[in-house]
Amino acid sequence: MDASNLPRIAFAMGDPAGVSPELTAKALADAQVRAAAHFIVFGDRRMLDLGARQASVALDIETIDAEAIRARAEGTVFVDLAHCDPATITLGEVSEAGGASAIANFRGALQLARDGHAQAVAFTPFNKAAMRLAHPSYEDEIVFLSEELAFEGEASEFNILPHLWNARVTSHVPLSGVSALITREAILDNLTLTHDNLKAAGFERPRIAVAGLNPHAGDGGNFGREEIDVIAPAVEEGRGRGIDCAGPYPSDTVFMRANRGDFDAVLTMYHDQGQIAMKLIGFDAGVTLLGGFPFPVCTPAHGTAYDIAGAGKADLGATRNALLLAATMARRAQAAHIAA
Amino acid sequence: MDASNLPRIAFAMGDPAGVSPELTAKALADAQVRAAAHFIVFGDRRMLDLGARQASVALDIETIDAEAIRARAEGTVFVDLAHCDPATITLGEVSEAGGASAIANFRGALQLARDGHAQAVAFTPFNKAAMRLAHPSYEDEIVFLSEELAFEGEASEFNILPHLWNARVTSHVPLSGVSALITREAILDNLTLTHDNLKAAGFERPRIAVAGLNPHAGDGGNFGREEIDVIAPAVEEGRGRGIDCAGPYPSDTVFMRANRGDFDAVLTMYHDQGQIAMKLIGFDAGVTLLGGFPFPVCTPAHGTAYDIAGAGKADLGATRNALLLAATMARRAQAAHIAA
Repeated sequence: MDASNLPRIAFAMGDPAGVSPELTAKALADAQVRAAAHFIVFGDRRMLDLGARQASVALDIETIDAEAIRARAEGTVFVDLAHCDPATITLGEVSEAGGASAIANFRGALQLARDGHAQAVAFTPFNKAAMRLAHPSYEDEIVFLSEELAFEGEASEFNILPHLWNARVTSHVPLSGVSALITREAILDNLTLTHDNLKAAGFERPRIAVAGLNPHAGDGGNFGREEIDVIAPAVEEGRGRGIDCAGPYPSDTVFMRANRGDFDAVLTMYHDQGQIAMKLIGFDAGVTLLGGFPFPVCTPAHGTAYDIAGAGKADLGATRNALLLAATMARRAQAAHIAA
Repeated sequence: MDASNLPRIAFAMGDPAGVSPELTAKALADAQVRAAAHFIVFGDRRMLDLGARQASVALDIETIDAEAIRARAEGTVFVDLAHCDPATITLGEVSEAGGASAIANFRGALQLARDGHAQAVAFTPFNKAAMRLAHPSYEDEIVFLSEELAFEGEASEFNILPHLWNARVTSHVPLSGVSALITREAILDNLTLTHDNLKAAGFERPRIAVAGLNPHAGDGGNFGREEIDVIAPAVEEGRGRGIDCAGPYPSDTVFMRANRGDFDAVLTMYHDQGQIAMKLIGFDAGVTLLGGFPFPVCTPAHGTAYDIAGAGKADLGATRNALLLAATMARRAQAAHIAA
């Protein structure tokens, strides 16, 4: 691809006490990643250089200041916020300073994309406890993004393996509260969001399986009626809107079917219904996409891996997949924008 | 092993319209199965012979009548109930006649074990819809067994792979009703039952992981308090009773840990929490144990596979594992009985 046609991705360094510095450096030294997009990386340059030493890679990334980036049309560059001296961070330890630096990096990346200077955002893993120390109201990335972008539409988290997507109707809520949140509207909103995001990632006609809520998908109403009263009608309405969806299917076999290729995505009703399956199928290569915002936001599904921080052993796979997905979605958004 | 020391297993043929006849015949022709126990098989001899033709195996099983069996001390024999003419059964179709024959076989096997003439029971797959046609109050095997045996103690279903057991605190109930059933007493009963059944199957000091109920095991109370208020205290009390248990662990990673060998069993809070994982890890070889009754009851975890009925393609693996587990538990119960 002609480099001048490459999309631009705003890329925030994550928590400095884990594998994020190492993964950022490895990603920027990876030929496949570099060929896919121009990256505008937000962080502290000293932390990136530490990551490069941890990763044993050499980096040729130009550092520029935060204002200059808006005048630049291309090239991969580093925006040095100079806010996180490695001497102040202890590897493997949660800290407010680490959380504050990750939040500043994330804000920088989000603002760049919000203002149209990047078509996607990516980040290496955050540590939620550190984020909360630095920003006590930090609940999760969806809530933070919605607040930062003053976004009031529908957004959702997608868990993505190379061959299989998972979206969910409810997420970080007590299990006892799930059933009350399973409404026809919520299912339809998520079906639409899933369909749209799969399309945005290049699936021509995405095939979506919808999981039931209850054991054996309710066994014909014997173990719960949500399938009959709510989920099946929502699936039917989704089909009426042109979405290739089917179900509700028992959640203990739907992932076996999807994993062998019967579906491109599974829409689950609650957090662990999908997470149990997705983590067993391929945790190491998984990507999290925050979809529904004006631009896609991608990150590896794994965490900060404090236990191997600094050891140079972090696997780039999931981060590479996250950046390549961001690049694919950014390129398609760019093309759609030019065509429009 | 000296054949006279082999345990006796009462073995009921399952639904005749699926793979049960074929699997019964294959099992009785399998050298490893035959070396493990004496089997007293309940069914219709014509159906077993049909299964042998489907399976392309030759059987040398003596047929005796139901009364004679109680006088026999050893040998594998067939008790011909002569109640299910293959001409009346259509392969791949649910029927009342099929359900009635499976229930009669199951009853015969249960009564033999109840009366002390067998130390374990096994069966090839039932079809729940057929069971209900024949016996409208049929809910599941646990309820049926409890009624047949007038059993009022604690019983539970275990899902078993060669390296990993799964038990659950709640099973066939609507998801919205799960939280109210998660009590300290219910968890402790199931921990004890799991511990005892693992011991009965030969685990010297079984290691049991307990799953949380909520996403991220409640995230310190942010997404539900059952982990703090109920599950953690129950785990603590279980340890006080000498059970090697730990948790609550987030359910989306506990099976990854158990699957790599950190635990022998996972106690889950609801049906799909365990079923999603166990089916992904190794559905084809899975065994269901109904534990807690005066004798163990084992069956392959898969269903009747109507789609391949009669084709000779059914994999014996799970049935063989079910029969070998029944034989191991029966042999140990027999040895404990002699030692007592």
